[in-house]
Amino acid sequence: MKIAIQGLKGAYSELAAQQFFGKQSVAFNYCASFHDLFTAVANKKVRYGVVPIENSLAGSVHENYDHFFKFPVSIVGEHFLHVSHRLLTTRKGNLLGVKRVYSHPQALAQCAEFLRSLSNVEVLPYFDTAGAAAFVAAQKDPTLAAIASSHAAKNYGLKTLASDIQNQNENFTRFAIIELGKATVPSRTSKASAKTKSAKTALICALRDIPGALHKALTVFALREIDLLKIESRPLPGSPFSHLFYLEFSGDMREQHVRKALHHLEEIALTIKILGSFPGSKPKLTP
Amino acid sequence: MKIAIQGLKGAYSELAAQQFFGKQSVAFNYCASFHDLFTAVANKKVRYGVVPIENSLAGSVHENYDHFFKFPVSIVGEHFLHVSHRLLTTRKGNLLGVKRVYSHPQALAQCAEFLRSLSNVEVLPYFDTAGAAAFVAAQKDPTLAAIASSHAAKNYGLKTLASDIQNQNENFTRFAIIELGKATVPSRTSKASAKTKSAKTALICALRDIPGALHKALTVFALREIDLLKIESRPLPGSPFSHLFYLEFSGDMREQHVRKALHHLEEIALTIKILGSFPGSKPKLTP
Repeated sequence: MKIAIQGLKGAYSELAAQQFFGKQSVAFNYCASFHDLFTAVANKKVRYGVVPIENSLAGSVHENYDHFFKFPVSIVGEHFLHVSHRLLTTRKGNLLGVKRVYSHPQALAQCAEFLRSLSNVEVLPYFDTAGAAAFVAAQKDPTLAAIASSHAAKNYGLKTLASDIQNQNENFTRFAIIELGKATVPSRTSKASAKTKSAKTALICALRDIPGALHKALTVFALREIDLLKIESRPLPGSPFSHLFYLEFSGDMREQHVRKALHHLEEIALTIKILGSFPGSKPKLTP
Repeated sequence: MKIAIQGLKGAYSELAAQQFFGKQSVAFNYCASFHDLFTAVANKKVRYGVVPIENSLAGSVHENYDHFFKFPVSIVGEHFLHVSHRLLTTRKGNLLGVKRVYSHPQALAQCAEFLRSLSNVEVLPYFDTAGAAAFVAAQKDPTLAAIASSHAAKNYGLKTLASDIQNQNENFTRFAIIELGKATVPSRTSKASAKTKSAKTALICALRDIPGALHKALTVFALREIDLLKIESRPLPGSPFSHLFYLEFSGDMREQHVRKALHHLEEIALTIKILGSFPGSKPKLTP
């Protein structure tokens, strides 16, 4: 089964995909950009894509919500990845002797406190964590180290000098599992009634910029006691009188009350793109 | 007047601060991290801080909302900066002869299409755009270039080989101007009634995770025809049964209907932190 991710072999996205699908029977299509990833899914080059949609420190990845809006894809699952950074080198031993540390600037910033505790170490930026690990492995210089995941360590045969070196332990990235095909709300007369335990439904809708517009839209969920899980507004560039909203709520659109809420929302919103109903997951610290 | 920013001389934050306050009479305190910036404001080392809170492509900067929640600061203004990248070198002329391009990986990604149009160019990551410009200026090698702002070009005496080289022109970062002091809602009996034209009020509140909680909270604004400008939910780490919400709406809390809405919201929310009322601004493309 072929899966598209953005990044290199050993990237956090690859780890998220392996945790979700299991290691067996998965082959990766490594994409240079998120746009390439969505294109690969839309053109049937892969069965699934695994794409980050939000991080607990950095927020939602708006770029990917833009791609959700444009590409004929839907969300079929989600996975929370605990972002756990390690200091990796080509040799076992202690931290003494490390002279240069390479990683993505964001990972370096997330490990700033640890890095300050090392003396006489030069910190150098790299494009991505997996690339930094590959570079350090290729150099075979025991004074060089990379900050990356345990997954990158395995991929490039590196040893771990220190684990969980990030400033904040509760750092999660949420990934969406996407596939080709638009999600559509079953018709009013549909008999479909499958119910996924802990299902979530995600959508993007545009509302007019008038007082009370969002309140009215949320009434369709409140009336039916549907729990909102995520809401985020975003100004529509080039469209000064409307806003985009990302909404997630509990329930599956094959359930009748959810279906009715969505048909009700269609009366209120300017446009709606249903991203899909899928089994909900929860963040957990990796052991 | 002393102002704290995160980053180096020539950073986009410095440019935002200069556009907001004017170039005269401003001295900068360059902070290594956002935490250092909020600490400098809280400890009265500076009068103001200028801090990015959201980007049109990358989303809200959750880390800074966390600092808003923890530090005794309030928002007194906002500024939208058009992010416009340039290719900079030590010499005038054309693109031929450029062999290496340095910048922050995010800036390099935002200029990927332009970079692909150059042949035989090595693209190299750097910590930040201003740092890349400083490095290229110091090397005095005409085959090296940096991607950074016109502001960084001026600061480091570099020449512009190409302007507006980002893939998407509509790329804005919104900055908050912060100062020491908690914002508080005037009491019910207050006579205060100042009204700032196009004022906005921003707050963070926590709500219980029960169906309809947000709908109820938004009723306080809908009842008074107050326009919501931004809403974003965020799970509270370590607190599985409540959510944080970032809210912004039109109006000044010294106006009576806004004050009443806030007192009404206090009845519903678990906690509220008012970030402040301030004159609203709008994004505009720089000429």
